[in-house]
This record gives sequence, structure tokens and C-alpha cells, in this order.
Amino acid sequence: MSITMTQTASIVPLRNFITSMTHLVEKTQDETLLLAESKQLLSNLIQNDLWLPEFCTVPHPEFYQQYLLHADPLERFSVVSFVWGPGQKTPIHDHCTWGLIGMLRGAEKGQRFQIDSTGKLVTDGPETTLKPGDIELVSPNIGDIHIVSNAYDDQTSISIHVYGGNIGAIQRHVYEPETGEIKHFVSGYSSTQTPNLWDRSTEVRAQIQK
Amino acid sequence: MSITMTQTASIVPLRNFITSMTHLVEKTQDETLLLAESKQLLSNLIQNDLWLPEFCTVPHPEFYQQYLLHADPLERFSVVSFVWGPGQKTPIHDHCTWGLIGMLRGAEKGQRFQIDSTGKLVTDGPETTLKPGDIELVSPNIGDIHIVSNAYDDQTSISIHVYGGNIGAIQRHVYEPETGEIKHFVSGYSSTQTPNLWDRSTEVRAQIQK
Ligand SMILES: [Fe+3]
Ligand SMILES: [Fe+3]
Ligand SMILES: [Mg+2]
Repeated sequence: MSITMTQTASIVPLRNFITSMTHLVEKTQDETLLLAESKQLLSNLIQNDLWLPEFCTVPHPEFYQQYLLHADPLERFSVVSFVWGPGQKTPIHDHCTWGLIGMLRGAEKGQRFQIDSTGKLVTDGPETTLKPGDIELVSPNIGDIHIVSNAYDDQTSISIHVYGGNIGAIQRHVYEPETGEIKHFVSGYSSTQTPNLWDRSTEVRAQIQK
Repeated sequence: MSITMTQTASIVPLRNFITSMTHLVEKTQDETLLLAESKQLLSNLIQNDLWLPEFCTVPHPEFYQQYLLHADPLERFSVVSFVWGPGQKTPIHDHCTWGLIGMLRGAEKGQRFQIDSTGKLVTDGPETTLKPGDIELVSPNIGDIHIVSNAYDDQTSISIHVYGGNIGAIQRHVYEPETGEIKHFVSGYSSTQTPNLWDRSTEVRAQIQK
């Protein structure tokens, strides 16, 4: 079986997820509803990892990777494969939009933060560990600041993130816990290519043969 | 300058085209309007070829290539880079949806056909040659059957096609001029990857610095 045919067959869950997410953002702009329905859809998607194209699973020796899987053409949402090399971690950062983190392979540690009434950055709850199938939510309304790291120092971990905008192009912030400094930050993406979700030719040809 | 930065900068005309096309299909389903407005947008896009990612320009020694540049997630339109190796040509075929062919590099010969009142496939007008910047239209309403070939037998030609659906997954037809036979056909796409149109991080970072 060629590489093309393999992706054609296996990409279906991701394509269905994108189609459903597109209908969802066409239907509502209510964050509570968006998070609730996205969580259901993402939960289905991450039940297995067979659909994730190989090139979106490749770690970098130094930096965690952010492979764009799909951006809504009106930039209402985006879906990203986060690939954590051994021991890699983010700075403390925010998102400035709603987001979901769905664990796919390996495990991820997360610590949430908030700004207290004196303007100081303080932890918000205990450190948590995400296992495959687990989902965590962020947004400016429900808590948007966290630090995330690979729970393993000897293997790659991968999580699938969904955000309420084109996350690679959103102006957001990193937080310096020592100095209290807050800096602007725009993440971009790690690849100039995205998966082709739309080659349904095998499926359509099979319908013709019937 | 890295490859990433090069694409980030040069992909802008394609991203703007996709954004405008998305607004267009959100606005209307009227074919006449869709063709007229798409033609304007495509005409702007093909004024130069600097925006076309390298991997979507690669000919195959045997077959003309169809690189998906973008599919609307609700499959209302798609944009494809057709790459013609020296002397390559299509069979006589139809599209079963509206479409535009915009010449980008090299040149392409086209001959249109129609089914006459006796059910016979006959030519419809003279053979035409498209030069860079030229656009031709097809659809079941205005004439949908043609054969297309590279006008050169010693160089690659590239045209940018826009269709009123996910063209790689549409069930359409090829015509055998000798026997009159009509066969089902689904084209698929030549690559499992598409360009990442959405890395606007360089532009957003530049705004922050101001
Ligand atoms: Fe985060
Ligand atoms: Fe054609
Ligand atoms: Mg709409």
C-alpha cells in the first residue's frame, strides 16, 4: 500500500473532526457551547492516534513543535499537533482565546496560574498530569495561564490542541515568574505544510463500483 | 532567509485569495456570480507566480500532477495547481461543477467538446491556447467537456484551477472519442500535503514592534 493510500484511509477521523468543528463555529460564537461541543468531538478524535500523519509527529531536538493540522479559512478555529521531545516544556504563557488540550501519546504535566488581586502571578490549583484521552480547557474566562511540559524525560509525547482562532498568529503573552515581567509572544507554526484532508477519491471510487 | 520565512512572506496572495473565495461562497450559490467574481480574484492571483510553493510545481515524468492548494472545509470550492510535464495531456473529460483555469507558467492548449442532438461527441469551437494571465471557464451550463494539453513538448507548464466543489472527490466522466464510450472517473490529488497558508506570525510580530 502506498503512502498516499495509507493517508487517504487513515485521515478520515481528522477530516470528520474538521467538518464538525466547521459546522460548530458556523452555528455559535458562545464560548461555553463551543468548549462543550468541541470537547465531545476532540474526545472522539483522540480515542486513537492512527489518523495523525507521520510528518506531524516528529520532535525537534531543542524545541517543542507545533504542526498546524487545520486552520479555519475565516480563522475561527485551528487544530495543532504539539510534539514534545524528552523533557521539553513551554514558558508560562496564555492563549487569549478558548482552547482545548487533548492528550494523544505519552503524557503531559500542566500547572495553571492566575494573577492575584495584588497583580502577582500565583499558582492556581495543583499540578496535573494528562494521560491519553484526557482533555483540559483554557480561556481568559476560565483560566488562561499555564506552563506545560512533557511528563517523560525519555520519550516523545503528543497532544492535539484546538483553539478559538488562528493560534499561530494570535498576539499573546509569556510570564517571567521571577521578575513578574510580561512579554508579547506570537507562536507561529513549525511546518510550511499541512495534511491534505480532502482526498476522498478512494471512497468515491468504491461507491461507483457498487 | 530560511525556507519557512520565504513561504511565510510569499504565500500571502494565495491566503488572500482563499479568504476572498471563502467569503464569496458564504455569500452566494449563484453560478454566474461565482464565476464572475472568482475570475476577478483568480486574475489578480495569477499576475505572478512567486506565491506558489515549490512542492506544488514539481512535474511527474509520466502523469500531469494535481496539487491541492486548498479545499473549502465544507467542500464548496477547491484550488489546485496543475503541473504539466513536457507533452502531457488529459483525456477528454468533464467536471460536473463550475471551474476556472488560470494560466500561470508556460502555456496550455484546450479543445472544447459538446454532445450533439444525436448523442455524438463533437468539437465546440476552435482549439485555443492559454498564455500566462489567461483564464478559461467551464461548467455543465456553459460547456463542461474538454481536452487540455501542455502547449510545450520541452518545458513544464502550470495552471491554477478553481472548482465549485472538492474536485478530487467529484464523480465525473472521461469520453472515448473513437468508441463513444463514457467512463466514470475520480481524479484524487497528487500529494498528501497542502501548503500551510496560515502562518501570519511574522506579520503579527512586526505589528507588535511598532
Ligand atoms: Fe498552552
Ligand atoms: Fe478540465
Ligand atoms: Mg456561514
